Amino acid sequence: MFKKINISIIGVTGFTGIELIRLLVNHPYVKLKYLVSKTHGEHSKDYGQKISDVWPHLKNICDLDLTDMDVQKVAEESDVVFLALPHHESQKIVPIIINKTKIIDLSADFRLHDKSLYAQYYDHEHDYAEGLSQFIYGLPELHKEKIVSAQNIANPGCFAITAELAILPLKGCIEHVSLFAITGSSGAGKKPQDETHHSIRNHNVTSYKIGVHQHIPEIIQELEIEKSQLTFVPTRGPFTRGIHLTAYFYFQKKFSQKKIMNLYKKTYAKAPFVRMKKNVQLADVIGSNFCDIAVHNVNGKFIIQAVIDNLVRGAAGTAIQNMNIMCGFDETLGLKPISPIFP
Amino acid sequence: MFKKINISIIGVTGFTGIELIRLLVNHPYVKLKYLVSKTHGEHSKDYGQKISDVWPHLKNICDLDLTDMDVQKVAEESDVVFLALPHHESQKIVPIIINKTKIIDLSADFRLHDKSLYAQYYDHEHDYAEGLSQFIYGLPELHKEKIVSAQNIANPGCFAITAELAILPLKGCIEHVSLFAITGSSGAGKKPQDETHHSIRNHNVTSYKIGVHQHIPEIIQELEIEKSQLTFVPTRGPFTRGIHLTAYFYFQKKFSQKKIMNLYKKTYAKAPFVRMKKNVQLADVIGSNFCDIAVHNVNGKFIIQAVIDNLVRGAAGTAIQNMNIMCGFDETLGLKPISPIFP
Amino acid sequence: MFKKINISIIGVTGFTGIELIRLLVNHPYVKLKYLVSKTHGEHSKDYGQKISDVWPHLKNICDLDLTDMDVQKVAEESDVVFLALPHHESQKIVPIIINKTKIIDLSADFRLHDKSLYAQYYDHEHDYAEGLSQFIYGLPELHKEKIVSAQNIANPGCFAITAELAILPLKGCIEHVSLFAITGSSGAGKKPQDETHHSIRNHNVTSYKIGVHQHIPEIIQELEIEKSQLTFVPTRGPFTRGIHLTAYFYFQKKFSQKKIMNLYKKTYAKAPFVRMKKNVQLADVIGSNFCDIAVHNVNGKFIIQAVIDNLVRGAAGTAIQNMNIMCGFDETLGLKPISPIFP
Amino acid sequence: MFKKINISIIGVTGFTGIELIRLLVNHPYVKLKYLVSKTHGEHSKDYGQKISDVWPHLKNICDLDLTDMDVQKVAEESDVVFLALPHHESQKIVPIIINKTKIIDLSADFRLHDKSLYAQYYDHEHDYAEGLSQFIYGLPELHKEKIVSAQNIANPGCFAITAELAILPLKGCIEHVSLFAITGSSGAGKKPQDETHHSIRNHNVTSYKIGVHQHIPEIIQELEIEKSQLTFVPTRGPFTRGIHLTAYFYFQKKFSQKKIMNLYKKTYAKAPFVRMKKNVQLADVIGSNFCDIAVHNVNGKFIIQAVIDNLVRGAAGTAIQNMNIMCGFDETLGLKPISPIFP
Repeated sequence: MFKKINISIIGVTGFTGIELIRLLVNHPYVKLKYLVSKTHGEHSKDYGQKISDVWPHLKNICDLDLTDMDVQKVAEESDVVFLALPHHESQKIVPIIINKTKIIDLSADFRLHDKSLYAQYYDHEHDYAEGLSQFIYGLPELHKEKIVSAQNIANPGCFAITAELAILPLKGCIEHVSLFAITGSSGAGKKPQDETHHSIRNHNVTSYKIGVHQHIPEIIQELEIEKSQLTFVPTRGPFTRGIHLTAYFYFQKKFSQKKIMNLYKKTYAKAPFVRMKKNVQLADVIGSNFCDIAVHNVNGKFIIQAVIDNLVRGAAGTAIQNMNIMCGFDETLGLKPISPIFP
Repeated sequence: MFKKINISIIGVTGFTGIELIRLLVNHPYVKLKYLVSKTHGEHSKDYGQKISDVWPHLKNICDLDLTDMDVQKVAEESDVVFLALPHHESQKIVPIIINKTKIIDLSADFRLHDKSLYAQYYDHEHDYAEGLSQFIYGLPELHKEKIVSAQNIANPGCFAITAELAILPLKGCIEHVSLFAITGSSGAGKKPQDETHHSIRNHNVTSYKIGVHQHIPEIIQELEIEKSQLTFVPTRGPFTRGIHLTAYFYFQKKFSQKKIMNLYKKTYAKAPFVRMKKNVQLADVIGSNFCDIAVHNVNGKFIIQAVIDNLVRGAAGTAIQNMNIMCGFDETLGLKPISPIFP
Repeated sequence: MFKKINISIIGVTGFTGIELIRLLVNHPYVKLKYLVSKTHGEHSKDYGQKISDVWPHLKNICDLDLTDMDVQKVAEESDVVFLALPHHESQKIVPIIINKTKIIDLSADFRLHDKSLYAQYYDHEHDYAEGLSQFIYGLPELHKEKIVSAQNIANPGCFAITAELAILPLKGCIEHVSLFAITGSSGAGKKPQDETHHSIRNHNVTSYKIGVHQHIPEIIQELEIEKSQLTFVPTRGPFTRGIHLTAYFYFQKKFSQKKIMNLYKKTYAKAPFVRMKKNVQLADVIGSNFCDIAVHNVNGKFIIQAVIDNLVRGAAGTAIQNMNIMCGFDETLGLKPISPIFP
Repeated sequence: MFKKINISIIGVTGFTGIELIRLLVNHPYVKLKYLVSKTHGEHSKDYGQKISDVWPHLKNICDLDLTDMDVQKVAEESDVVFLALPHHESQKIVPIIINKTKIIDLSADFRLHDKSLYAQYYDHEHDYAEGLSQFIYGLPELHKEKIVSAQNIANPGCFAITAELAILPLKGCIEHVSLFAITGSSGAGKKPQDETHHSIRNHNVTSYKIGVHQHIPEIIQELEIEKSQLTFVPTRGPFTRGIHLTAYFYFQKKFSQKKIMNLYKKTYAKAPFVRMKKNVQLADVIGSNFCDIAVHNVNGKFIIQAVIDNLVRGAAGTAIQNMNIMCGFDETLGLKPISPIFP
């Protein structure tokens, strides 16, 4: 038995913030300490609201007050701080709180080792590039040993983690991989945009940022391939949650079906949230931290498909999995009871 | 055979604007003259675009340039001008173009005869209240004779026309009517809002402005009832197009099923766009100008249901029906070929 | 601390069956004993499958074998048996297992006290009418004291429980109530039908069985009103889970807003799964056992709205709530951690 | 001006049958003669119904009686007969009516030149293999000259035509192409199935028949490639209409962007229903006969995307386009007024 740890969330009113709450209220060793929101802070017109005033589905589940208190104080009184902020916002907070608490950053700010890649894909220079080396990329299936002793975690991007989990067992064997990934509207965040207008999104499918999406350098970094070896087609789909990814491979040498299957089984033998399936369907993982993966063989060419819930496995769920590992808890705590919701 | 008339649309890049185009390109006696858009006008950064650049589904269908030219000139060179603007915007344009062309205003600005009701429901004083009396309320099934000789039409609101068509045959008999109406997201317009965020709207049902919705005074005015005789519950549904309305009645005297049915048949005997059905379903009218109506009798209490496509019968379709009547064309021109799209 | 009880589910492969599993795997005092399915039983061609073979989202969550073993044996080895069968099927099983175990029947077979009403609304004579008096109607907010000592529970219908929870505090005051309720497709069960064809259901709204729906006698029975006092319009909506209900009231005497609010607060003071809200939205309860209720006052007429998840509060969740009460557990066990999934 | 031709549809109550009606009622030179339906025929319990009784959205649009009269008589009294039947059904009708009328078969029965491929992909021997050589594959953009003088047309499959239009300009240059295509539920036909259950389909994405789908031989035949050069991943998406296809290429030699673009422009210079776009979105073509195509270049690798409405361009629309060409009408008659319905 553990003593409860104090957890705070900065940027709590976004979709990943409320998903963290949905999951953390079930965690046996977690006490929610501060819910920080700039837009509902002490100096805003919306001050005085609880999280369940802003998001009423949380009523009776989490009725904590929102605050915009000094983040240094938040950090000092918390064992772990989750940053559920847009990219470019986390890098303003991190210098203030680093080394004062454990940090799990769900933004893109500390995922890339190379600050020039950050500048290229995120359209501005990094404000705290010296912090990049102090973060571990939070993909437990790849970096568990480092995460155990990490102080700061950069939680993977939603497309990136889907691609990485789909491809990880084949690392080192890839000549070229083409990816098609279709994502739900919740991946775009809560701020209304043309792309997430219901009338436009509903019954629509459209690709965007083909070959230039900001998750590309992350995938390349973790799979240790060159940019020219990856073709990535991110696509918007007419559903709320989830990513369905298809990977078409060219390998450096020929593989048997059996060999491929063994690579996957071996890689994920001790991974509680990866399920190998004969075929995957998006609905099977919604609400859960599972990544389902299937291997298909067409005339000797291999096609790998993977599905996740972008708000759980692609954000809050993996963040809690990282927290569990960092804090010495069982990796599945607070996440195992969360079955997929089906239908 | 008629000579083609010149038609211009002011506020063309909204959902009702592009729906007008979808329908008017099929009209045998219409030539689209000017497509006016303030946001894509000569002084904007987006100037130089065609309507099909902004809305690419129109490519090869309507590739006219967008303009923000002087509306007086637009009016002078057009036989009919459609105003597809938000409310409060039309009343700024109308004083400039009135009596220079026929006007069909799809906004709410000239629907109410009483300027104080306008101020109450639309939150500001009317800027051109003297114009109110110069507009005919464009419900062809009620005011066809006036529309024939009208110069200016105030096109009905989408909820309002559904309620009015559902109830019209019972005008004069109602003690009280309770309405439940559920609408698609396109009714909220193209500007992204929290309520039309796909992640929020999709799989959600929520009522709003219960008893205070701005279409209430319009319904009351046309059905000639008191506010206290109407309970209106407008509701947002998880679909793009359409309104499904249910009316629960208390009558001043007892009616037989046969009597009610006769009232409906008589009222709509010559209405080409009203279909009496045993039961209605929203999908049966989508894309078309039909209003389907069904009468149900439960233990002597009558329930009337009506369905429309909010962008056609609730906006662009009725506007064109009004134009046809004003211009001496067959009422159904350009609208009859538009079958519902099903499934 | 309690010893774990043995739970079996008969009819486990339907939507309510798998929802029971989703919830029960999180219950601290429950051990799933037998998962009974006739279609996957020992004599069927599908024998040998696990529940997670039939419904792969359950892989690694519940991998128990399916069986079609003798239900008497199932009953004898189980502390509680859930019957997740279509109506008319439960009444064939109940005579065999009654008094051998606690029964929670999710079908309609034992909800009505009057066998003639059953025959009228379900189109056939009841096969085990003598059993009707041995079942308690499982609405915890109304019959908690009886449920504490009950052996057999008839779990409420999904529309019925929504209406009952919406109206319960006004019991005894109603002159007439008109209901509009819109439900998701999961309410129709897993067997594909025209009404649940995605192409037909998606983007459609249509009412059915107006005034003759089989949940009417249940509502009347529990609210102790006459059939003529209720107008019920059940409606199919384009979403998977949930019921959104609107009730329009005529009262026997005049009520103040304050009086009404007090009735609701008092009735639900100790109800852990009823939340009073200013406004309700369907998305706020999906995945959870909550019923959210809001009271609206329009010109002195009261409109009550209520929302539930039909598979949780309308089926499996209430069933487990009943089980908790029957077994002396805290009423919320296994249900409290299940937050709504939003967005 | 042409005299109207008599058109009959066999298998009219399916999704492609009613889509043919939606489009044909707008065709200036078409008179609908017989609507043939076995399930609503003279000997069935449903006899006596109009098409608008079965599909009430057609009320006042097409109220013709359904019949199951002798198909030979249908053929003799019709200038063109559309067969909107499931595969394996058309081949029973064709021998009776061939050479008595023009035939446009929307099933898969006469698309493949090689009867052994038919047997392999459709799981039974062809009943009328001698008829295969008498049909022209109805892809107007490829076979227009043959269609002009054709008596019998095999209308392309919905996935197949999307792939063929996407790839056609590159015919002869392909080393390998990987396809990802996601389709709406209407492609599965009106008969309810597990895969089209709203609760399952809605919010789901799942691939099926990877590498073995029955449209593969059709694509290979028309593009003149080997099976090993094609990897096809057909996928079910949560929407009603449309196919969105992505093609990843390996070429036999290196191409410049300009060269590729020229190939597309040249191939489709006179194709009224192909629109080249910078980017495609599914919603832009829904309801219309357009195929929108975009070319993307990622690090020198080319990705082609194409979108169609599966019921129009993938079935009824192309069928009418073929009819127009066969009958000497303008290719676009009855199809041009059908703008996409957006949003």
